[in-house]
Amino acid sequence: MKKQSFYILIIGCSRLGVYIANNLSKLGHSVVIIDEDESSFILLDVNFSGFKIEGNPAELETLRQAKIAKADIVIVTTRDDNINIMVAQIAKEIFKVPRVMARIFDPVHEGSYLLKNIDTICPTSLAGDILLKAVTDRDEGK
Amino acid sequence: MKKQSFYILIIGCSRLGVYIANNLSKLGHSVVIIDEDESSFILLDVNFSGFKIEGNPAELETLRQAKIAKADIVIVTTRDDNINIMVAQIAKEIFKVPRVMARIFDPVHEGSYLLKNIDTICPTSLAGDILLKAVTDRDEGK
Repeated sequence: MKKQSFYILIIGCSRLGVYIANNLSKLGHSVVIIDEDESSFILLDVNFSGFKIEGNPAELETLRQAKIAKADIVIVTTRDDNINIMVAQIAKEIFKVPRVMARIFDPVHEGSYLLKNIDTICPTSLAGDILLKAVTDRDEGK
Repeated sequence: MKKQSFYILIIGCSRLGVYIANNLSKLGHSVVIIDEDESSFILLDVNFSGFKIEGNPAELETLRQAKIAKADIVIVTTRDDNINIMVAQIAKEIFKVPRVMARIFDPVHEGSYLLKNIDTICPTSLAGDILLKAVTDRDEGK
């Protein structure tokens, strides 16, 4: 099994951003995390070994400063779906990042045609489907 | 396969609350949803056949008004973990609801001893683990 270190850019220091940044950093990857609110970095582990960049992720200058063009993986997890969709598209189409993943907050946006070639994840529908399954299983007496 | 209609109380008309309320209502269950902000009900489907109760879920009077003691299932999905944990405990211990499920926002609270006998779901760690797996699979060339 090969063990590579990836250059991973995480955009948005939300709870989800923090969760994956801390874990990917522990796994030995090079992690850079961007947020426009410096105080959000406080949730990162004290052992977080990556870089933190304070800046607006909707500005190309911030993305360039984070060397987005060199990223193997970009994960977009701000709290705003519109920014997530836009930044994911920029990463994919302008900077040709091989793998782009975006958190989608509102299940309504999940099917957006704008998200072609972008892996999306919607925590709300993930959790919702598990809760629905629990009720259905109960209905079937499992 | 038996098909029962459950009396399901959903506390918190968050995105997750709306998602499950709409789906459980479609499945033919009796759904009641509580939120202290009436405007949050706007996200429910026009076909939502359940009841909406405007009230503070941290007050026993609101829970009694929603006939919590008769509920087969209580699902707590407000945006506040402390309220979720407290209301889930009240449902389980005071009103003896057979099945109680709570959304936990912050992965840090997931292991809380207060959540004994309560099924918890943390959308952040669910989504985070899927994103981490995607990176690990890439590392292993899958």
